[in-house]
Amino acid sequence: MEATPGTAQVTGHGVSTSVVPADHPGINELFALLAYGEVAAFYRLTEEARMSPDLRGRINMARMAAAEMGHYELLRSTLDQRGVDALPAMVRYAPALEQYHRLTTPSTWLEALVKTYVGDAMAADLYLAIAGSLPVDVADVVRSVLAETVHSQFVVAEVVTAVNASGRQRSRLALWARRLLGEAVTQAQFVLAERDELVDLVMAGGGLAQVTDLFDRLQRTHSERMHHLGLS
Amino acid sequence: MEATPGTAQVTGHGVSTSVVPADHPGINELFALLAYGEVAAFYRLTEEARMSPDLRGRINMARMAAAEMGHYELLRSTLDQRGVDALPAMVRYAPALEQYHRLTTPSTWLEALVKTYVGDAMAADLYLAIAGSLPVDVADVVRSVLAETVHSQFVVAEVVTAVNASGRQRSRLALWARRLLGEAVTQAQFVLAERDELVDLVMAGGGLAQVTDLFDRLQRTHSERMHHLGLS
Repeated sequence: MEATPGTAQVTGHGVSTSVVPADHPGINELFALLAYGEVAAFYRLTEEARMSPDLRGRINMARMAAAEMGHYELLRSTLDQRGVDALPAMVRYAPALEQYHRLTTPSTWLEALVKTYVGDAMAADLYLAIAGSLPVDVADVVRSVLAETVHSQFVVAEVVTAVNASGRQRSRLALWARRLLGEAVTQAQFVLAERDELVDLVMAGGGLAQVTDLFDRLQRTHSERMHHLGLS
Repeated sequence: MEATPGTAQVTGHGVSTSVVPADHPGINELFALLAYGEVAAFYRLTEEARMSPDLRGRINMARMAAAEMGHYELLRSTLDQRGVDALPAMVRYAPALEQYHRLTTPSTWLEALVKTYVGDAMAADLYLAIAGSLPVDVADVVRSVLAETVHSQFVVAEVVTAVNASGRQRSRLALWARRLLGEAVTQAQFVLAERDELVDLVMAGGGLAQVTDLFDRLQRTHSERMHHLGLS
């Protein structure tokens, strides 16, 4: 199925929204942002994996990190096909993403696990917020790199066991997760403030309400995720 | 094509050697050794990548590291099919491999690049030394994880440029490469001294001569690789 620029498309929620043209300038920006995000996540995961108490944890993190590079390859080749050199396009997103990671450096293995899981969940939220307004082939790429949260599932059992054993651990990790969300929202707002093309892309799904909706969704789904981790 | 235990097999060099049975105990040991080697290489590459002067270098190293995890997945699932739990089987190879990396920690980005390239080359040599005596399906797995040196090709141009610009850099890196080879041989000998099943597997290709041949080959091909890197 090929998306025709400007046609309506039925999203997973059954809501019909307007589809942006395939050459919308926000699409290349989105791909570049995601590409830097994957490389940054790769290096952060491998650094944070050093806190793992055992080989199994380090291997799980390495597998997740390797999956991020698979996503990166897809984004890079997609940008390439669109005539965009990935590296110079990516670097402008380095400050926001590196700042997010700097401000959310875990101090324990459990914090690292929660960060991994929450990061994946936020990526999936971003996908849901914009998928409806993207041409089908673009939405496919975005889904491949954002909507796949299966790799972070190994986190759940370990976190649930730890917080069931310690109420103090539960409070501590719940606060940590809240902080991750806060820093992510702050950095997302910085990025949007500097990149009109991206705001335009998010708004294409339903105007300013769509932007507000993205942040509302992050808050709402955060509670669900906290519940899954035994943190609520 | 299925390999029958004990039958003769024509290797890539046209030499007919004896094939070990598929349940030879050295095969699981080899897979476990390689599995730990992949995970160790993953974490070392990502650490050494931090020395890269630019994003391009970090991305190249991350792609190589991700490929190592792809190899790990193959080894883990192969061990799984053979009824072996990978993790406990792997850890016995941790000391030798961690010791190799500890003794060959690069102090510059160029040293990191040379280490990457030489490591890949030594893995390919190991494959050539034993492939002829392995059952076909086992040899396929070993080739997939060892013989693929394409990922380290990005190293060559960067090293050649650097050593052409500086004779001092050339001497320094040539010594470094020699040290990498020496430490690898030392650790390989430790591993063989402790694992009779592995010695038995290597010797299956042609007795003790085959073991000596492995180390001779490492020396011989080392000179070729040094030439490719502009280090001879």
